[in-house]
Amino acid sequence: MTAENPDEARRISDMLIEKRLAACCNIFEPMQAVFWWEGAAQSERETAFIAKTTTERFAELKAAVLDAHSYDVPCIVAMPIVDGNSEFLDWIGEQTRAQS
Amino acid sequence: MTAENPDEARRISDMLIEKRLAACCNIFEPMQAVFWWEGAAQSERETAFIAKTTTERFAELKAAVLDAHSYDVPCIVAMPIVDGNSEFLDWIGEQTRAQS
Amino acid sequence: MTAENPDEARRISDMLIEKRLAACCNIFEPMQAVFWWEGAAQSERETAFIAKTTTERFAELKAAVLDAHSYDVPCIVAMPIVDGNSEFLDWIGEQTRAQS
Repeated sequence: MTAENPDEARRISDMLIEKRLAACCNIFEPMQAVFWWEGAAQSERETAFIAKTTTERFAELKAAVLDAHSYDVPCIVAMPIVDGNSEFLDWIGEQTRAQS
Repeated sequence: MTAENPDEARRISDMLIEKRLAACCNIFEPMQAVFWWEGAAQSERETAFIAKTTTERFAELKAAVLDAHSYDVPCIVAMPIVDGNSEFLDWIGEQTRAQS
Repeated sequence: MTAENPDEARRISDMLIEKRLAACCNIFEPMQAVFWWEGAAQSERETAFIAKTTTERFAELKAAVLDAHSYDVPCIVAMPIVDGNSEFLDWIGEQTRAQS
């Protein structure tokens, strides 16, 4: 995902953690986004951030981000985890289980 | 992808956007690359950057980066997007459609 | 992967390169990790880093990182490369081949 700035990335990350839609989020230093706008390549500072969640929770996560984001069409893309530290992957599952 | 420095990452990103081979690129702050060289682990500052494009356009993107890059064997790796904000994914398709 | 700080990320990266378990590692600038802890969303500075390796070497890489890491349950996740600069992908294979 990308956000306008670190504050927006942190606001959305806190919301995802509190709603248990992500186990953890990583907010990177601001980066340079380059895109086509009004006939030329333009660039702006944006903040990239990652949310680690499960396939089951992704639809809810996407809806919550769309609702909270300042952009009309925010970048929300899901990339698969195919292997890893099984304890960490279990932890993601536990942290994102709907809390009764 | 990685580039020697932010300027090279921006030059390649602008080219990909202007040729409609990527919808947008994200250029991260310089990072530390660690690799084996002359018998030991060495490290150098490099710049990582991402280009968001379609499967159809990847071969052309790869050829254009190989042509523009200062390295003989640059790091160009494709990672799949398996889900996401459909409006954003559609936008990637529109932005990278060959312009008649 | 994430580490407590840049020094830990570099120590683990050097180890992976010297043991030929990764062809190269990229250590990013410190980022903000956000996670649930003691009833609220908390955040800490962490360092994200990437190791480029082969499917064959991943199990050994994971075991070596678990052994070297300061965390009990470190984030180690594998994300697939589905295409790329074939010379670079070959280079990853050569660099991570067990040295006789």
